[in-house]
Amino acid sequence: MTTLYGYFRSSAAYRVRIVLNLKGLDYDQAPVNLVRGEQRDDAYRARNPQGLVPSLVTDDGVSLTQSLAICEYLDERHPEPPLLPADPAGRARVRALAQLVACEIHPLDNLRVLKYLTGELGVDEATKMTWYRHWVHEGFAALEAMLSREAGSGDFCHGDAPTLADACLVPQVFNAERFECDLDAYPRIRRIAANARALDAFRRAAPSEQPDAG
Amino acid sequence: MTTLYGYFRSSAAYRVRIVLNLKGLDYDQAPVNLVRGEQRDDAYRARNPQGLVPSLVTDDGVSLTQSLAICEYLDERHPEPPLLPADPAGRARVRALAQLVACEIHPLDNLRVLKYLTGELGVDEATKMTWYRHWVHEGFAALEAMLSREAGSGDFCHGDAPTLADACLVPQVFNAERFECDLDAYPRIRRIAANARALDAFRRAAPSEQPDAG
Repeated sequence: MTTLYGYFRSSAAYRVRIVLNLKGLDYDQAPVNLVRGEQRDDAYRARNPQGLVPSLVTDDGVSLTQSLAICEYLDERHPEPPLLPADPAGRARVRALAQLVACEIHPLDNLRVLKYLTGELGVDEATKMTWYRHWVHEGFAALEAMLSREAGSGDFCHGDAPTLADACLVPQVFNAERFECDLDAYPRIRRIAANARALDAFRRAAPSEQPDAG
Repeated sequence: MTTLYGYFRSSAAYRVRIVLNLKGLDYDQAPVNLVRGEQRDDAYRARNPQGLVPSLVTDDGVSLTQSLAICEYLDERHPEPPLLPADPAGRARVRALAQLVACEIHPLDNLRVLKYLTGELGVDEATKMTWYRHWVHEGFAALEAMLSREAGSGDFCHGDAPTLADACLVPQVFNAERFECDLDAYPRIRRIAANARALDAFRRAAPSEQPDAG
C-alpha cells in the first residue's frame, strides 16, 4: 500500500493528497506532527533527510520527496486523469502557476520560517502576520493577473478540469484563509478554488478530513 | 530568436541559461536590473505579472515564466541531451533535488526577501547574513545527505551527465560562495558543482560572462 508521510495542515502534503485522490489511488497516512517537531527526528530523517513533509512511499517501494516531484511522478505512473495538458506550452503554463505558489508564496510562509521570525529574529505576532500576508498578496496579485489575462484559464486554473496548478492553489487559499488574509481582490482565484473544492477529490483532501486533524 | 529576460546574478535566470546552453540553443538576452527594480516596472509586468525574472519568449512567440517550468518546456521541445532520466523514479529524484534548491533554499534568500528583512523588519546586516546562511545550510545538509546516500548520484547529481538538478545546484553554490557560506561540510556538493562548472554550457552561463555583469 502507498504510504503518505504528511501532516493535516501541511500545504505541501495537502497537494499530494489532492493528486492521490484525483488519480483514484488508495493510500495509508503516516502523520508526522510538525508542531511537535517530529519531522526533525532521526527516524524520519532516515526516510527524508530534508526533515520536511510530505514524503511518499509507493506500493512498489519507491521513496519520493518534494510535493511537486511526487505529483509529477504520480501523473507519469497513473496518466488518467492527466494533471498537465498535452501541449508543451500548456504544460509550462500549469507548471508556472503551480510554481508561483510552491516557489514564491509557500516557502516564505511555512511553519519553520514563521518560527525563525518569532524565534531567532524576535519579531512580534503582528509583524509575523504582516509578513505572512505580504507574501500571499504578492503572489496572489500575480496569480490573479495571470488567471484573468491569459487565454488558458477556465473554470479551473487551466481549462475546465483540475490540474497540478489547482492542487497547489487550493491548499494556499486554505492557508491564506487560516491566516485571515483578505482575498476580496482575487475574485478569479476565489472562484476557481470554490470550483475545485466542490470536487470530492479536493474535499476528501482537506485538512479537517485527515486522521491527524486536531 | 529566443529572448531571455533575466539578470546576471539571478540564480533562477542562471538555471535557464545553463539549460539553453546544454540544449545548444541560441538566445538573446534582455537584462532586467533587479537592483534598480526594473522587474516591477509596468512594461515588464505586462510581460510577467509576477515581476520576477526570468521569463523567456521563444522564437515562435511562446511566453514562459518560472525557471523550472521554462527548463522543462525546453526539455520537452528539445529532448537532446535530456535534462531528466527516462525512468519515473529517476525523474522524480532529479526533480526533488532541483526543488530542494528551488523551493527550500532560493526563495528564502533572494533579493526581495533580503530587502524585506533589512527594510520592513529593520534587521542589521549581520542578522541578514545569518538568515541567508541558515537556509543554505539547512538545504545543503539535506542535499549532501541525499547525494551521499542515494544510489542515483554520480559525477553529477544524478548519474554522470548534467540534469535539471545540476542546473539548480550550480547557481545556488555560486550564491552561497558570494555570501561567504562555509561549504566545507558539503564535499559531495562541491565535487559535483566543480564537475558541472568545468563544462562549457555551465561556464558560459556564469554571471560574470553575461552582458549585464557589472
